[in-house]
Amino acid sequence: MARYQVVLAYDGTQFSGFQRQAEARTVQGVFEDALRRIGWAGRAILAAGRTDAGVHAAGQVAAFDLEWAHTPAALAAALNANLPPDVAVRQARPAAPDFHPRYDALGRVYRYRVFCDALRDPLRERYAWRVWPALELELLQQAAAHLPGAHDFAAFGAPPRPGGATIREVLEAGWRLAGDELVFEISANAFLYHMVRRLVSFQISIGQGEVRPEALPGCLDREAPEPVRGLAPPQGLSLVRVLYPA
Amino acid sequence: MARYQVVLAYDGTQFSGFQRQAEARTVQGVFEDALRRIGWAGRAILAAGRTDAGVHAAGQVAAFDLEWAHTPAALAAALNANLPPDVAVRQARPAAPDFHPRYDALGRVYRYRVFCDALRDPLRERYAWRVWPALELELLQQAAAHLPGAHDFAAFGAPPRPGGATIREVLEAGWRLAGDELVFEISANAFLYHMVRRLVSFQISIGQGEVRPEALPGCLDREAPEPVRGLAPPQGLSLVRVLYPA
Repeated sequence: MARYQVVLAYDGTQFSGFQRQAEARTVQGVFEDALRRIGWAGRAILAAGRTDAGVHAAGQVAAFDLEWAHTPAALAAALNANLPPDVAVRQARPAAPDFHPRYDALGRVYRYRVFCDALRDPLRERYAWRVWPALELELLQQAAAHLPGAHDFAAFGAPPRPGGATIREVLEAGWRLAGDELVFEISANAFLYHMVRRLVSFQISIGQGEVRPEALPGCLDREAPEPVRGLAPPQGLSLVRVLYPA
Repeated sequence: MARYQVVLAYDGTQFSGFQRQAEARTVQGVFEDALRRIGWAGRAILAAGRTDAGVHAAGQVAAFDLEWAHTPAALAAALNANLPPDVAVRQARPAAPDFHPRYDALGRVYRYRVFCDALRDPLRERYAWRVWPALELELLQQAAAHLPGAHDFAAFGAPPRPGGATIREVLEAGWRLAGDELVFEISANAFLYHMVRRLVSFQISIGQGEVRPEALPGCLDREAPEPVRGLAPPQGLSLVRVLYPA
């Protein structure tokens, strides 16, 4: 029996989120089913984070203990053969016996993709949020520049446990143009519930000129803030990477 | 009553191709349903080309006669409100009364997306073909350089009617690197059935070093050729644009 860690990618469209639920199709559920088919008898896998329903991942990290006589590459192949098309193991390797993908993580990187178009576009809306009127990149960049550092993000989301801390440290945050998409990327030690999607929604109203960029720092570090209202839809969001000590 | 032409985009995954069928979900079927809901009483729309099951389109062109008192932009919006999420009108405009999207077309542009990876990737396989071992771009480019011009493509597909002509004129064809994807783009006056997907499959075996680039011209302009065997899967292919006189 040894501990393994895997990097998982999934298209979140057809999942009720990552975390196992009795009656719903979840990433954890189908992954544990695949593990059982190759001999796993554990109770639950460990994972770096819980993504919401509809949110994608290119770099979710999970860990589990398994009796496995072959190579890690063969483990990845065996799991992929037992997983549905919308989830795959992208990497598998041995881990320290006490490795915990959540507690050992130094941070997470999320990406949110937006495109500006007056008309629906079926080839793009599975992985990006369509926004109209168009956005000004410079306004978005001005807004995002306020995010790095340790801040109280209470206005932008709830902590995992009621009454828990709402201070998070943003390592980097910024918008860039990628083709004709606007891409927001943010890394932080951890995130509040819905935090990235609320930050995106708020910045979209800034990018459309409805709200000034300075309104963003005005919502940070407040003791008992009024929560911001909008929530960007899940399909634009993906968990890109989980950061660990080198 | 006036003739309108529309540019349609669709995600082909959930469609049994473009052309209407009694028992299957098709793009033509759902589009005609949407048209009927805004007052259309025609028998069938006209379209530039029939895409296969699973093939996408960013620039399919269709035409129909309709009594419509509002602007073309309002027509696009009304149709989009009545279409499912995987089809949309990207443009609508008045057309000449005798405009025919197929007969008036000078050519079609198709794109095929490929990526090289040993492991499945759920976030990419909806719109691209995963290929392994990796491909050499230069070999692909050497192969594609043989395509432009008028050639007998009988080895690469069947004509619309049995016994019909198999000569097609390729305007441009080539491979390029786009991020970490290899993209094949080809324009021709018209295409044989399955022609692009057979050309891609054949070139992949060239890019993997199994077949030499010179084998491609060896399959062209043959009177009674042995048909090439492979067929690239539909999800990598999309109809990008239909070309009309300026």
